[in-house]
Amino acid sequence: MLTRFAVAPSGFKESLSAQAAADAIAAGVRRVVPDAEVDLIPLVDGGEGTARALASATGGRLVALPATGPLGEPVGTHFALLGTGSGTGIGSGSADTAVVEMAAVAGLSLVPHGLRDPGATTTYGVGELIRAALDTGVRRILVGCGDSGTSDGGAGALQALGARLLDEDGFELPQGGRELIRLHHIDPKGLDPRLAHTELLVACNPYNVLCGERGVARVFGPQKGATPAQVEELSAGLENWAYVLTRDLPVTCDLYGGPGTGASGGLGAGLAALGARLLSRFEVLLDHLDLDARLARADLVLTAEGALDHQTPRGKVPAEVARRAKLNGRPVLALAGTLGEGAHTVPGVDAFTGILPAPMALAEALVRASELLTDATERALRMILLGAGLPRGAGV
Amino acid sequence: MLTRFAVAPSGFKESLSAQAAADAIAAGVRRVVPDAEVDLIPLVDGGEGTARALASATGGRLVALPATGPLGEPVGTHFALLGTGSGTGIGSGSADTAVVEMAAVAGLSLVPHGLRDPGATTTYGVGELIRAALDTGVRRILVGCGDSGTSDGGAGALQALGARLLDEDGFELPQGGRELIRLHHIDPKGLDPRLAHTELLVACNPYNVLCGERGVARVFGPQKGATPAQVEELSAGLENWAYVLTRDLPVTCDLYGGPGTGASGGLGAGLAALGARLLSRFEVLLDHLDLDARLARADLVLTAEGALDHQTPRGKVPAEVARRAKLNGRPVLALAGTLGEGAHTVPGVDAFTGILPAPMALAEALVRASELLTDATERALRMILLGAGLPRGAGV
Repeated sequence: MLTRFAVAPSGFKESLSAQAAADAIAAGVRRVVPDAEVDLIPLVDGGEGTARALASATGGRLVALPATGPLGEPVGTHFALLGTGSGTGIGSGSADTAVVEMAAVAGLSLVPHGLRDPGATTTYGVGELIRAALDTGVRRILVGCGDSGTSDGGAGALQALGARLLDEDGFELPQGGRELIRLHHIDPKGLDPRLAHTELLVACNPYNVLCGERGVARVFGPQKGATPAQVEELSAGLENWAYVLTRDLPVTCDLYGGPGTGASGGLGAGLAALGARLLSRFEVLLDHLDLDARLARADLVLTAEGALDHQTPRGKVPAEVARRAKLNGRPVLALAGTLGEGAHTVPGVDAFTGILPAPMALAEALVRASELLTDATERALRMILLGAGLPRGAGV
Repeated sequence: MLTRFAVAPSGFKESLSAQAAADAIAAGVRRVVPDAEVDLIPLVDGGEGTARALASATGGRLVALPATGPLGEPVGTHFALLGTGSGTGIGSGSADTAVVEMAAVAGLSLVPHGLRDPGATTTYGVGELIRAALDTGVRRILVGCGDSGTSDGGAGALQALGARLLDEDGFELPQGGRELIRLHHIDPKGLDPRLAHTELLVACNPYNVLCGERGVARVFGPQKGATPAQVEELSAGLENWAYVLTRDLPVTCDLYGGPGTGASGGLGAGLAALGARLLSRFEVLLDHLDLDARLARADLVLTAEGALDHQTPRGKVPAEVARRAKLNGRPVLALAGTLGEGAHTVPGVDAFTGILPAPMALAEALVRASELLTDATERALRMILLGAGLPRGAGV
C-alpha cells in the first residue's frame, strides 16, 4: 500500500531550496501515484531559509527590516515571528517566539567572493535582529546557525546588544574576528536588560566547537577565505575571546570546547556567554514542524540532499529524517545529486539513488536540479512499485 | 519472492561487452540477494561479439583464420561453428550451422579514424569467411550484420565468392562502394557452386534499407566518415548495384527497399541476390540462446544498454527483452548509461534507472562503466526490495 508520502528533503546547496526540492519530489511522486497524499516537509538546519520555513510551517510571519551586513554595509533582512499552526515540545504554543536566522544578516552568501576576509566580517547585524525581536515583546528568541560568513565569535552581536569590548587602553574594539586578540576586558553594563527575562535558544550543530584542533577557525576558516596565517590569528583571537568572556560575564558553561560553541564562526560561544542555551539544531527546529508525527503517518518517507556520503550520518538532514522515520518503522528512500563514498552506510536509509540521467557537468546538474529530481523520483517510485507488485513468497 | 534473476543486457558501445555488462549486473544483484540464482544471458544483435557469444551459448567453437580486412589488408579473424547445447526454432540442432560475423572482418572498429573512407572499404573478407565456412561442410550459414565499416553493398563479398563485376569495357571493378556506379554487368558463372545447396541466413535490422531517402548511404554514411558529396555518390552507386543485381541474377525480392537490404552498408542486398533470407536479427539470434524459456523462469528480468531513449523501441535489445519477458508476464528493470528523451516509453519496461552516481564526463563514465553498473544494480535492487517489503493493501 503506497498512498501517503512524507517528502522531507534538505535544500540542495547552490541549487534548490528545501521547498523547491520538496516540490520537485512531489511532482515525481504524482506522476506515478496520481492520487498520492503528499505531505511536504521542507527541512531546515538553522542556516539559509530557516526563518522563512518556520514562519511558513507555523502560520507565522516574517518581519522585514534593514540591518548591518557582514561587511558593515546595510542590508535588507528579516526575522520570523512564529505562529501556532504546528509544533510540539520546545516549540509548542510558539506565538511568543521569534526566529533570528544568522545567515539572513551575516551569511556567507552576503560576502562577495572577492571580499572574503573572515578576519573582518561581523555578526553585528545578528545583535540588531535580536534587539528588533525583543522590541516585539516575544518571550523566546531562537537563533538559527549555519551558512555563516563570519568568524568573530559573536563579538559584533554582543556589541550591538550593548556590551562594550575594550582594548587595554580602554578603547572600543572595531568589528571583526581579527581584533579579538586585542580584547582586554568587557563592560557588560549596557547590555539590553530585556535579555535577562527572555529565553535565548541557539540551534546549532553540536559538532562545532570554538577552540582547539577541531576549533571553528581551523575547520571552517579556510572555507570562508582564511589563509593559514589568518587561521592561526583567528584561533588565537577566539581563545582570548573565550577567556575574557568567561572571566567578565556570569558564564557557567565551557566556552572553549562545549558542543555548539563554534557554531557560525563562534556565535554560539558569544550567545552562550549571554545565557543562551545551545541546542542540537534538529532537536529545536524539527519539533516546530511536528516531524515525528508526520513521518509516522507516511507509507513511504522520501528525503534528499545535494550529496549523500560519509558526512551524511554526521548530523545531515537525510540521516536525521531516516533516524526519526525508523522510530516508527517507516521505509525511507533518499535521493541525492551526488552519491559519494559511504552513501550506502546511512543508518535507516533503506534505498537511495542519484538523480543524473546521463553524463553531465556539475554546472548543468545544478541548473537542471529540479527537473532531474522530479524525473529521478518518478524512476525510483516505479522501481518500488515493481517490487510492491512481486508475488510474496519465501524468497525475500 | 525474488530469487531467480535473468540478466539479459546488450553491450555498452565503446565500453562494455554484453558479457561484461551481464557480469557487472550480476555482481550488483548478489550484493543485495547473496544467494540469488542469476542466469547470465549476454545478448547480441548481429554485430561485434555475435560469433563468439553464439559459440559460447551453444557449446560450439570459433575457427580462427586470416582474411581480407575492410581496407584490403590481411586481418586475423574468425567464424563460429555452433554446438547443440541450446537453441530452439531456426537454430535448433545447429551443429551444422556456421556463424559469420561481418564486423569481425569488415567492422568499423577495423578502420582507423584517419582512414575512414566509406567509398573505399570492402566486404571481400566476408565472402572469404563464407567460403571458409562452406569448406567445413555446414548446411547453414548465418551472417550477422551490424557495426559495419563498409558501404559496398556486399560487392566485395560476391567477388570473393566468385562473381565477376564488370565495367562497360569488361574489366573487373576494383574494391569499394564508389566503384559501383561504373558497374555494367555481372558474370555469375564463377560463383561457388556450394552456395546453391547451403542455407544462407542474414541476421539484420529490418529497418535498414538499401536505397531511397532512408537508404543506408544517407542514414549511416556520415557515421562511417562520408562527406555529403560521397553520400550522393554512394547512393547512386548502390541504386545501380540493385539494378544490375536484379537484372543479372535470379533475384525474387525487392533489393531497393526490402527489409534489411541496407544492413551493413548494403551487404544484406548483396547476399539476398545470392538467395539469402534476410531475417530480423532477434528472431534468428535469440532463439539460439533459448531466451524465451529463460526469461519465463525469472522472478525479475534485468536488461541494459548504453542508452535508453526514443530509439530503444526501434529494435534495440532492451525493447526486445521486455517484449519477450511480457509474453510470460515477467517484471522488467532496464539500466542504462544514458537516459535520453523517450526512455520512459519502452513497452514492457516496468522501471528503469541510470547508472551515474554524480556529475561526470562521458569519458569517465565509459572507463568506469562496469563498476557504475554494479553499484546502480545494487541501488535498484534495494528500491525494489523496499517495495517488496511494503504492507499489501488497497492503495496500490
